[in-house]
This record gives sequence, structure tokens and C-alpha cells, in this order.
Amino acid sequence: MSNQKTINVPLGERSYDVHVAAGLLDTLGKTAAEMPNVRQVAIISDSNVAKLYGNRAIESLADAGLDANLIEFPAGEVNKTLSTTSDLYDRLFALEPAIDRDLLIVALGGGVTGDMAGFVAATTLRGVRWLQCPTTLLADVDASVGGKTGVDHAAGKNLIGAFYQPGGVLIDVETLKTLPPAVLSSGLAECVKHAVIRDPSLLNFIEANAEALAACESDVMTDLVARNVAIKAAVVADDERESGVRMHLNFGHTVGHGIEAFVGYEAITHGQVIALGMLAACDIAADMGLVDSSVRDRIAAVLEKVGLATSWPGLDVEAIWSIMQHDKKAKAGRVRFVLPTRLGKVEIYDNVTPAQVAASIERLA
Amino acid sequence: MSNQKTINVPLGERSYDVHVAAGLLDTLGKTAAEMPNVRQVAIISDSNVAKLYGNRAIESLADAGLDANLIEFPAGEVNKTLSTTSDLYDRLFALEPAIDRDLLIVALGGGVTGDMAGFVAATTLRGVRWLQCPTTLLADVDASVGGKTGVDHAAGKNLIGAFYQPGGVLIDVETLKTLPPAVLSSGLAECVKHAVIRDPSLLNFIEANAEALAACESDVMTDLVARNVAIKAAVVADDERESGVRMHLNFGHTVGHGIEAFVGYEAITHGQVIALGMLAACDIAADMGLVDSSVRDRIAAVLEKVGLATSWPGLDVEAIWSIMQHDKKAKAGRVRFVLPTRLGKVEIYDNVTPAQVAASIERLA
Repeated sequence: MSNQKTINVPLGERSYDVHVAAGLLDTLGKTAAEMPNVRQVAIISDSNVAKLYGNRAIESLADAGLDANLIEFPAGEVNKTLSTTSDLYDRLFALEPAIDRDLLIVALGGGVTGDMAGFVAATTLRGVRWLQCPTTLLADVDASVGGKTGVDHAAGKNLIGAFYQPGGVLIDVETLKTLPPAVLSSGLAECVKHAVIRDPSLLNFIEANAEALAACESDVMTDLVARNVAIKAAVVADDERESGVRMHLNFGHTVGHGIEAFVGYEAITHGQVIALGMLAACDIAADMGLVDSSVRDRIAAVLEKVGLATSWPGLDVEAIWSIMQHDKKAKAGRVRFVLPTRLGKVEIYDNVTPAQVAASIERLA
Repeated sequence: MSNQKTINVPLGERSYDVHVAAGLLDTLGKTAAEMPNVRQVAIISDSNVAKLYGNRAIESLADAGLDANLIEFPAGEVNKTLSTTSDLYDRLFALEPAIDRDLLIVALGGGVTGDMAGFVAATTLRGVRWLQCPTTLLADVDASVGGKTGVDHAAGKNLIGAFYQPGGVLIDVETLKTLPPAVLSSGLAECVKHAVIRDPSLLNFIEANAEALAACESDVMTDLVARNVAIKAAVVADDERESGVRMHLNFGHTVGHGIEAFVGYEAITHGQVIALGMLAACDIAADMGLVDSSVRDRIAAVLEKVGLATSWPGLDVEAIWSIMQHDKKAKAGRVRFVLPTRLGKVEIYDNVTPAQVAASIERLA
């Protein structure tokens, strides 16, 4: 392929490669067949993505001589639950021939699919191998690296899960062409986040290529995804289980999670939430004297350029603050913030005052 | 304590110690408090064991200044399900203050409790630390080492689960004094298994101390448990994820699982199943010319001495064989057997004929 990028995620015996290119979905069978002892494959996909790409994935696997099965679940974050997981187990254990530990699971879809199929892989027969084929930009640059798997619980998102690395990731950037603009923008928010925490030149790249990215031009998109995967891989390699620097990836998430829970998961994209959360974090950092207020302006300009809102009417400060204090990332009741100290660098703080948080949310509302 | 044994399970960054002695349950709080950042503890225990030891465990933790909570579930293998797990998540996420990743889970009980609480620990907030306090001999010498966690599915036992090592294990041999004789014998079957696969001198020890073991004399029991834990730890250290020699621990399980599913999990103890399975494996090995038939006689004599049956009326050869072929340990339809080549040594074979299996089951029936 004209422009294929491969990024290794270096995690010792759990290392794996992330491949990025246009048309990679058709190489799924070859990739799977090259893994030792793979004979039987279960593709887990949601009802939307299965319709678009299920047949191509099945054909690619079948062409490689593998016993390929497609297991669908109803699309939507609302279905990322233990109950859906239970249905997926039922269908895996009903496959003929009966599955064994050599089963390969393929997660074909966006973040919900990757999280849930990865969790099923982590917990089926005490762990079987899995490949990720993400089909949204957000999943490409976020969920594809780091092995965070899991499902939501009534008490919060991703409360049930495991760290479980895939055997490999195939990112076919052509699948992004079918995304609605709001979903594409959601992924671009995550790219802006990576730029702000690690690589200001990526911010320039996004700004300069905003039109090509909106049109999903394959070469530019391949470069964008590869750069973002490389940033995330470096962070995760330093801290696989999120006890230190991996928390930098939560930039924008602290206030963001509060906004997301307040507005409702179906009413706002995750990336839009992170966009707002990043702006709030910049305001807090500026208020604490950590960073100049121009950083917020610069980020806001790029966010707007890629189609994201920089304010959201109707946010309720008290309700959001209450949600934030119950977030699972709160440590002994203290809410920790990832705050910028300059473009490309963030640090963790737990001495943010409620008044600073309130002011940052009010400015968004 | 007069006789305390500690065995390290050497698994790199996942290494942990197994402590064996009379009265260890009262040291739970001290052990938990010595773990970094532990403030909040959830004890998961079944309704029988919670009644017997729940208060002691809670008091020990509270005395050490920890926020201790007891979460009960209805006793019985029939409750080792994803559905019970779902209830346990609900109760963990309802705790006040809200749990975070520093939560410590304590599994207080037998194998069902250890498997399920360990699985909950593996999958709560993508993994929290856990301690095992096993209260049956089978759990002491089997489930306490190796990190196998999980729950049953309608399609088979332990089909949903994870490898997830505990932070430590406290085996209080005094808790064995409340066990019914059949449950104690069940654990002794597992000890006989360890002897046959690795250490013939342990077989002599069990035979010579059968009365003291039946009476749960603390010193003898401590020695027995420590010797068995050491054997299992050595095997698991060689092969944490069960791709090679760890399968030796399945000696007696291939036919055993078939018998267990046929007779019904509630109608026969796991140890009794393994006892019968070991005798079948000896018969098969003798038929294949791998070992002298006197090995079967020797094992049968020790099994009888510790209160285990060496035959079981009503076994249906065809039904059991069919179940065995669907066992998750079957590899691409081939049933693998762990067979003795002499006392203290076993090997894996996949060329056993259905006729040899049938003959071995018929002899038990």
C-alpha cells in the first residue's frame, strides 16, 4: 500500500503492532491466519458496523481458510453492559465446533465494540486472543492502544473491565469515510488532546489539514492516526496499568466526565465532552497561574476548526461537581486534575478548588 | 505461632506469599493494613462461611483501622454464575464511600468463593487487589495457588473467568475443623493427586497421617497444606497460563469432568470426582503399557484410607464420553489425557482410544 504505517506498542510479552492504512480490513484474514494455532474466529460487531463491514471481514477470514463467525449486538453505548456481555458469552459457547482457548476474537467497530469485545476476550475461557479493527477515529487513536476493556454499570462508565492487550490492531482509515461529521469530530478532539499533552506540532498539523481530514483523505488520515497512536503507545508503554503518567491521557476527562454524565451519554459525543473538558482544564490552569490564558484560545481555535463546539448551554455547575466527586478516578474523595503547564506538557494536581472548577464550567455554559 | 509455613509463589511482578498456620484468620487485618494504600476492604463470602467467620474477619480488619464491609452471596456452586457476579458488582458500587482502585477484596470461603471473588477483583475498575482466605482443604491446596478465577456458564464450569493472581493467601487450618468429613476428603483427593504427579513421599505422608488429618490436627494439617501448596506453586511458576506442564494438574480431571457433569455437581464432591478420574487415568495408562497396574492399586488404597470411594455405581460410559469431547480442555476435538508413567510423574497424551476410556469408566461403575 502506498502509505502504510506500523507502530509497535512495547509492553514486553504483551507487545503488539498497530497497522494503519487504507484498505486494511481486507488483510484481516491473512493477519489472523499468521497467528499460531488460529482456526476459529468470532467477529464481534454492533448492528451498524456489521451491516457495513461484516461481510468483508467474514470473507477475508474465510479466504484465509478460517472458520469465521459473526456475532452482532445492538449498537449504542446503552448496550455496553454486563447483560449484553452475557448474551455474547451465550453465543460464543453455542458455536459449533465448541470453542477452545485457540479461539480468536475480532472486535470490529467503534469504542463500544472494542471495549466490550475486548472484555469478552479477556474473560472467555480465562482469556483468548483478540484483534482490534476499529472503525471510528476515536477508537483508532484511543481505544486501539492500551488494552482498556470493559462495560458500563448503572453506577458509572467502564466500572467493570480488565486491562487486556490485543494481539494486534488493524486500522483501515477508509472505514472513517462512512462516519457522520460529528463522530469524526469526536475523534479529532482526542487528537487535539494528544497534541496538547505531548506534541504541539501535531496541533499545527491538525489545523493545517482540517479540510483534508474532514474529507477523510486517506494519506492525511493515515498520518494523523499513526502520529496519535505513537503518542498513546509511548504513554501506555511507560505506565500500562495507569498508576502514573498514563493519567495524562485523562486531560479534559475530569470535568469532561462530569459534563458527559450530566448531559447524557447519548446527547453528546465523547470527543465533544473532552473538548469542553480541555477548555475547562485550561481555565483552571490559568487561574492557578500554571499557564497563560492564550493556551485556551489556541486550543479553542483548533477545536472550532475541526467542527467542535467550545461552549455548551445549560450546564449545571453543582450537579456536575457532584458527579465529578464520585468519579472512579477520584482518589480518596480528592478529585485529581490533569492540567497544562504549556502546550505539549501536563501535570497532575489535586489542589484545585471547587470555586475554580465552578468558574471553568460557568464559562462553558 | 508454633508451626507457621510460608510458601512463595514466584510469578515475577505477580509473585505472592501463601501463609499456612492455625489461627491466621485473626491476622487478616494486619496483613491487609501492611499493603500499600489499603483503606477500604470488601470481604466476599458465602452465606455459610460468613456466618462462621465473617465477624472475625470484619473485627480483624476493623482493629487494624480499615473500613471493612461484608458482602454475602448464597452458598453453593449453583450460584457461581455471572448473575451472582452482577449482584456483587451492584453491592460493591453501592458502598459508601465510593470504591476506588485502592479497594482490597478478601475472598473468605471455599473454592466457589475464591473463584468468584477473584473474578470480581479481576474485573472491578479493571482490577483491584485481593487476598484469599480459603476455608476448605480443596481451596487451600488448589484454588489458593495459580490465580484461576471465574464463574460457571450453562455450557460448562469456569467458562467465564480470568487469570488474576491474589496479593497473598492466608490459610487458617483451624477453619477446616468445621468441615463435614466428605468435604475434607474431597480436599485430600487433591493432595493425593499432587503426590501422584510430583511427590510419592507425600502419598506415604497422607497414608501415615490419615487419622490425624481426619481429626484436623493443626500441626499435621499445616504440614500437609504447605507441602501441597509448594507442589502447586512450583508447577504454576513453570507455566502460569496453562499452556504446558500446568496441565499436569489436570490429572484425573479429563474423565473426572465427564463424571462430574454426568452425576451432577451437587451430587458428588469435586475431590471424589478427581479420585475416580485418577483411577480411570491409571487404568488407561496401564492399558497403554505406560505404567504397572499396581500404581492404581496403591492410589486406590490411599484414597480409601482418607474416606473416598473407588467406584461409583450408575456411570454411563457413552454419556460421559460425549461430555468429555465438549470439555473446554479438548483441543480441536482431541481429548487430552494426563497419564502416570510412574508414581510421581505424569505426561500428556492425546492418542487414548474411546475403547480405553470406556473400559476405565466401566471398571468404576
